[in-house]
Amino acid sequence: MEKKISKILIANRGVPAVRIMNTCRDRQIPTVAVYSTPDRLAHHVLVADEAVHIGEAPPLESYLNMDRLINAAKETGANAIHPGWGFLAENAEFARRVNDAGLIWIGPSPEVIEAMGDKMEAKKLAAKANVPTVPGINNVKAAKEIRDWMKEDNVSFPILIKAAQGGGGKGMVKVNSDKELENAIDKARSEAKKSFGDDKLLVEKFIDHGRHIEVQIVADSFNNVMHLYERECTLQRRNQKIIEEAPSPSINNDLRTEICFTAVRLMREIGYTSAGTVEFLFDSTTNKFYFLEVNTRLQVEHGITELITGLDIVSIMLDIAEGKRIGFSQADIHPNRWALEVRINAEDPKNFSPSFGKISRLQVHHGPALRVAQGAYEGSDIPPYYDSLFMLVMTAGPNRDFAIRAMDRTLSKSIRIEGVKTLVPLLLSIIRHESFQKGEFSTHFIEEHMAELVSKFQDIDSEDEIIKIAKFVARVSALGPQEWM
Amino acid sequence: MEKKISKILIANRGVPAVRIMNTCRDRQIPTVAVYSTPDRLAHHVLVADEAVHIGEAPPLESYLNMDRLINAAKETGANAIHPGWGFLAENAEFARRVNDAGLIWIGPSPEVIEAMGDKMEAKKLAAKANVPTVPGINNVKAAKEIRDWMKEDNVSFPILIKAAQGGGGKGMVKVNSDKELENAIDKARSEAKKSFGDDKLLVEKFIDHGRHIEVQIVADSFNNVMHLYERECTLQRRNQKIIEEAPSPSINNDLRTEICFTAVRLMREIGYTSAGTVEFLFDSTTNKFYFLEVNTRLQVEHGITELITGLDIVSIMLDIAEGKRIGFSQADIHPNRWALEVRINAEDPKNFSPSFGKISRLQVHHGPALRVAQGAYEGSDIPPYYDSLFMLVMTAGPNRDFAIRAMDRTLSKSIRIEGVKTLVPLLLSIIRHESFQKGEFSTHFIEEHMAELVSKFQDIDSEDEIIKIAKFVARVSALGPQEWM
Repeated sequence: MEKKISKILIANRGVPAVRIMNTCRDRQIPTVAVYSTPDRLAHHVLVADEAVHIGEAPPLESYLNMDRLINAAKETGANAIHPGWGFLAENAEFARRVNDAGLIWIGPSPEVIEAMGDKMEAKKLAAKANVPTVPGINNVKAAKEIRDWMKEDNVSFPILIKAAQGGGGKGMVKVNSDKELENAIDKARSEAKKSFGDDKLLVEKFIDHGRHIEVQIVADSFNNVMHLYERECTLQRRNQKIIEEAPSPSINNDLRTEICFTAVRLMREIGYTSAGTVEFLFDSTTNKFYFLEVNTRLQVEHGITELITGLDIVSIMLDIAEGKRIGFSQADIHPNRWALEVRINAEDPKNFSPSFGKISRLQVHHGPALRVAQGAYEGSDIPPYYDSLFMLVMTAGPNRDFAIRAMDRTLSKSIRIEGVKTLVPLLLSIIRHESFQKGEFSTHFIEEHMAELVSKFQDIDSEDEIIKIAKFVARVSALGPQEWM
Repeated sequence: MEKKISKILIANRGVPAVRIMNTCRDRQIPTVAVYSTPDRLAHHVLVADEAVHIGEAPPLESYLNMDRLINAAKETGANAIHPGWGFLAENAEFARRVNDAGLIWIGPSPEVIEAMGDKMEAKKLAAKANVPTVPGINNVKAAKEIRDWMKEDNVSFPILIKAAQGGGGKGMVKVNSDKELENAIDKARSEAKKSFGDDKLLVEKFIDHGRHIEVQIVADSFNNVMHLYERECTLQRRNQKIIEEAPSPSINNDLRTEICFTAVRLMREIGYTSAGTVEFLFDSTTNKFYFLEVNTRLQVEHGITELITGLDIVSIMLDIAEGKRIGFSQADIHPNRWALEVRINAEDPKNFSPSFGKISRLQVHHGPALRVAQGAYEGSDIPPYYDSLFMLVMTAGPNRDFAIRAMDRTLSKSIRIEGVKTLVPLLLSIIRHESFQKGEFSTHFIEEHMAELVSKFQDIDSEDEIIKIAKFVARVSALGPQEWM
């Protein structure tokens, strides 16, 4: 039952929109961009074949407005919608409405999105597929239930209370001792209600200094479910990843096989189709891993998996959405390099406060081992309404050291961004830190080392190759070629 | 007998110099650039840690001046020299003098360079290693020898007369009939004498519409000789390659195995060390391949092999020069993509006449599948004295179609070069040609189709994404945001 995608509307902006459009262009499928008023000159608008204005700046009036997005597809004759990541990418209702409108949804089925969006439901399905989950109980109402469970299962504080519909750290409260318990439940419940309109809670054992390891999956509607190996995404600031790598430096090949095929088993069990990611929490002290969640969409960090495998995940998503079989088998996938990704957000690297405005200069000197994903161009604006991510820098090499050094070269010598502050100085500080280079870090690394990392910012400014060129040219112009020689 | 490289002088300029410096920076080895007077602000000078002026514009006074290059290394404390490609890269005397000066030569031994530089000697060694060579005779003096050989071996016209020391098509004369023979010998001899100071000639059967397939080899001094698979370099203009790809679209896996291990056998036989390439002429009508020559250096097109294998060939050359073992085995090499490279020369795409001057604009919008090697920056000059190559654009994807389409996207929409003419319109015309897309072409493709290729130039200009951005911005500025909305 193949159906041909003739034109795609990308219900997104910035880096994900441009990324998806690039593959569409390579496949010669016309693309439609959507934009809010402040985005009328945004990069994704100019890369697309056509563009539709869908509303004003606030996301609810534009990128989250389902009616306008579906209408824009119909008006332009697009017969498929790719949601990118963020915005409506994991919204089951949107997926359903896209299908109901007779359009092709490029992603998993609405039922799967819905099931995985509910943390309790997802944990139940994982347990059913014999996938290890963090010990805990669902549907928690009162402190007594928690105390009974802790006694029965011999669990000690700290524990974690989570909103069933949660994400991005919201509705998540760590409880360090029994006397904090009642207040913590109240706090989690009120945050959950406010953020997700649903106050259902679950409670889990707290795994300290865990690492985030996730497995990239692709699955078609013929029951072909394959993994494209894992990524390590432990380095986060405020529950948001900023450095990712593939493969993970914290597991050996036996664990790699186990974790990857565990992810395949789960995705097969839940009838997953399209590209998706199974996230695990890995406890490196016990070598145990636990299911965290399934991200039912393309992820920011998919590019490093593409770098190690040579595949194009967006293209595979298009094939699957068209009802085709995946054109290769698990045995065909041979990762042959180590890849690193850093996220270039427009933020003050000292405190993560947003830095908006015009990117007055955006230059990259290219070289081996480098991949750049742009969501903005020199001269474009970073508006204050959306995600501050505007560029991804990826490097790849035969081993981890190589990828780190190529990243160091790129960030310190080959990129020049002016007009907005970026995370570049912090990212350089991190990749030069001994613990990072040894692969020894947990999700708390950045918060625990922030002062030390910031103190190393100074060295970096003077190294920029493009500044060197500018100074060089100025000096020669001033002296004249004769004096200079 | 390991010896540590502490600082490298790169006896080159432009794309090869910058390429090598990038790997040196990743390995934290300081680099020394050399430059002629017109190159004082060249890209390679600014990328290096230090730079030495070695003379005036003419290559014999600078990049070919062995004394000055070796002195520059000594003055700066460099203990190794990488020759890049072109200039002195295949000059046995230079390699010998570098070694005699107590410096590390990053390349094969002078003896091997010398043996492979002599086409007759190379053919003899190939035959000794049971590597098929084009039927022919060496040391040809008179027409009678040729006529006797043709009779005896049942060879018919056309045939090819070549200078023993030849290269780049010089001293090579195609003979179509018996009556041209005497004149052809005279012509080849005088060209050979003039270009190489040596009038020794050989004669070979002419393989019409052959394809160039070459195998990348790396070999250490512990007798580890490995191939990194093949490249197809058939598309040439005036005997110079302009589009290369890996793998070759013209051979199947059986032939691939045969040709790659034939190259390994030859390189093992001649005691090759460092990176090098064995070139073959492939006759697709008979499925036979013949040894052409060994390039005893890094090649322009090494990057596509890096793209498919995930390896860094420059880094491997450094390891081998330091006396280390290659750190992987043949079984570890898993190519996992298809890669394409085009050469961006500063030339008029209609007639290949050089186009020199200042590059006033050099912008690349990046995306997946792309690697760019720069030898110049926005604002730098392309001087008239040297090779017109200033940038390489490479794309890679899961299959050939993918790589071609990503190249089309990049050349047509994502690169903007102003100030000099480039081959970009011709390259686009070629990759869009049906014969190229089917993989059906010979070394004569460009000359045979030039008028047709040029006639397709028109369509291309208007597609440039960056021009689109500029026009878009101008339109909005003129109308004002209100009218525009």
